[in-house]
Amino acid sequence: MKIVIALGGNALLREGEEPTYANQMSNLGRAARQIAAVARNPSNMLLITHGNGPQVGEELLRNEYARAKVPMLPMHILNAETQASIGSMITSVLSGEFRKMGIRRNVATVLTHSVVDAADPAFRHPTKPVGPFYTRAQLAAELKRRHFSYVEERGMFRRVVPSPVPASVLEIPSITAMLSAGTVVIASGGGGIPVIAKGASYQGVNAVIDKDRTAQLMANAVKADTMAILTDVDGLYSEYPKRKSIIKHISMAELERMLPSLEEGTMRPKAEACVRFIRRGGSSAFIGNLSQVSRILASRAGTLITR
Amino acid sequence: MKIVIALGGNALLREGEEPTYANQMSNLGRAARQIAAVARNPSNMLLITHGNGPQVGEELLRNEYARAKVPMLPMHILNAETQASIGSMITSVLSGEFRKMGIRRNVATVLTHSVVDAADPAFRHPTKPVGPFYTRAQLAAELKRRHFSYVEERGMFRRVVPSPVPASVLEIPSITAMLSAGTVVIASGGGGIPVIAKGASYQGVNAVIDKDRTAQLMANAVKADTMAILTDVDGLYSEYPKRKSIIKHISMAELERMLPSLEEGTMRPKAEACVRFIRRGGSSAFIGNLSQVSRILASRAGTLITR
Repeated sequence: MKIVIALGGNALLREGEEPTYANQMSNLGRAARQIAAVARNPSNMLLITHGNGPQVGEELLRNEYARAKVPMLPMHILNAETQASIGSMITSVLSGEFRKMGIRRNVATVLTHSVVDAADPAFRHPTKPVGPFYTRAQLAAELKRRHFSYVEERGMFRRVVPSPVPASVLEIPSITAMLSAGTVVIASGGGGIPVIAKGASYQGVNAVIDKDRTAQLMANAVKADTMAILTDVDGLYSEYPKRKSIIKHISMAELERMLPSLEEGTMRPKAEACVRFIRRGGSSAFIGNLSQVSRILASRAGTLITR
Repeated sequence: MKIVIALGGNALLREGEEPTYANQMSNLGRAARQIAAVARNPSNMLLITHGNGPQVGEELLRNEYARAKVPMLPMHILNAETQASIGSMITSVLSGEFRKMGIRRNVATVLTHSVVDAADPAFRHPTKPVGPFYTRAQLAAELKRRHFSYVEERGMFRRVVPSPVPASVLEIPSITAMLSAGTVVIASGGGGIPVIAKGASYQGVNAVIDKDRTAQLMANAVKADTMAILTDVDGLYSEYPKRKSIIKHISMAELERMLPSLEEGTMRPKAEACVRFIRRGGSSAFIGNLSQVSRILASRAGTLITR
């Protein structure tokens, strides 16, 4: 089986924790044990992707605080940096777990670029909040220095950037070659580095791509059998948060009808990614709790979505 | 031919330039055109590595300046970040050049870890200067906060970290698979993320690995035919900087005898890497100017080293 696993932010940090290296390495142990249980079967090819919200936020802050002395990097380069920092942490912890369990498989991170359309309407309507919260006075000062879009959140202000739809991932041939070699591949963290085609070249853009959307794109591109989107919730609920209302199995068509009722920033993009993955050829998708990866993939936990 | 190209710092920045994104993208054009001329021949497999001195220095500064508000990342994670930031820049510029020239090849960066021995004597004798220059008073203040080794440079003080010898690169199987798929691979920037084996696991360490040494290690591991170390000097000189004294061809044994006369921080590690590469099975190595890559590989410029 070819499996794509999308790790939620809780794989790296629990609610309220600071994104220190030590905290993240310690949290990753849990995800690594779960993934190792799946990787133990050598016929399972594994492609892992992950979020980067808190980590890219911290990079943005470092760039802001140091900007008087060190030139700021563009936002898409900060995505690249978090693909590497998180990729390295997952590689270390997962390789260690493999060695403990006697699993002879390599783990590697390939840096990826997600191609978006320069005409994507998202570029005219930025929606994704990034970076620090500003007071009204701080916002005014920032806007004198450089132009940006912002939203109000709980009386504070925050910069927003576009969240365009990814059309392709440039590194798919490398990912395919690595999966075929038996390597557990880590790719497209934080949705990947957003680039647009400009003349003959690709150019990084100031945007953030939805990571579940890129997970789906990669899953279809590598012809994965299944995709598991892992989070801190046990699955989809018909009446959240009633435990007994958890949906064990739902068809793609039923889930599609349910989409408008799901919360926009959290469950809806995950459910949309599952629907799209199956419509484009995937056999099954799962949404479930990170701590139950192997049970989820055996259809014994979480929500299973099929055609 | 399987070719390893080690790009010197001048591929990204010229003497005295600030490491901004714009400067680096603009400088990379030159290296990209040179590399594209080699990649045009589809039987040439290409593995590219590069320095990261100024870039990792800036990351360290961002971490230092922001440390009151954002937790600092360990040094080896900063190496990871620069592998990605520089890898993404090279990928964009080189892919663009390929498209312009009608070369249908993929370019991808794989994040790499260099395994070092925890007993390496370098850990007891740190020698590699990193990060900001401190005055005597600043140094005293820093040393109250945390312990580190330092050296004096022109009346100022600088932190030094160990520069251990890399024993292996964890991601060689992925690099091999990608090269076989025809991808131009970028790997091990700044010498790679230094890790030591600790129990069953790998652990990042506070060190900086010589990039030419890692280039040689990868070149032998992927069984490269040739390795080209590119810099801003036209080659090895018998009487530097007399133009006419440039050495066009030298044997591994002759070069080995010449090593003690070469400058420690610059030409000597490059020459050592060439000697070691050939001793361990490589056919030829080159040291030369970045602006002459294709001429160098045709033995029409630079210094050729053979058995």
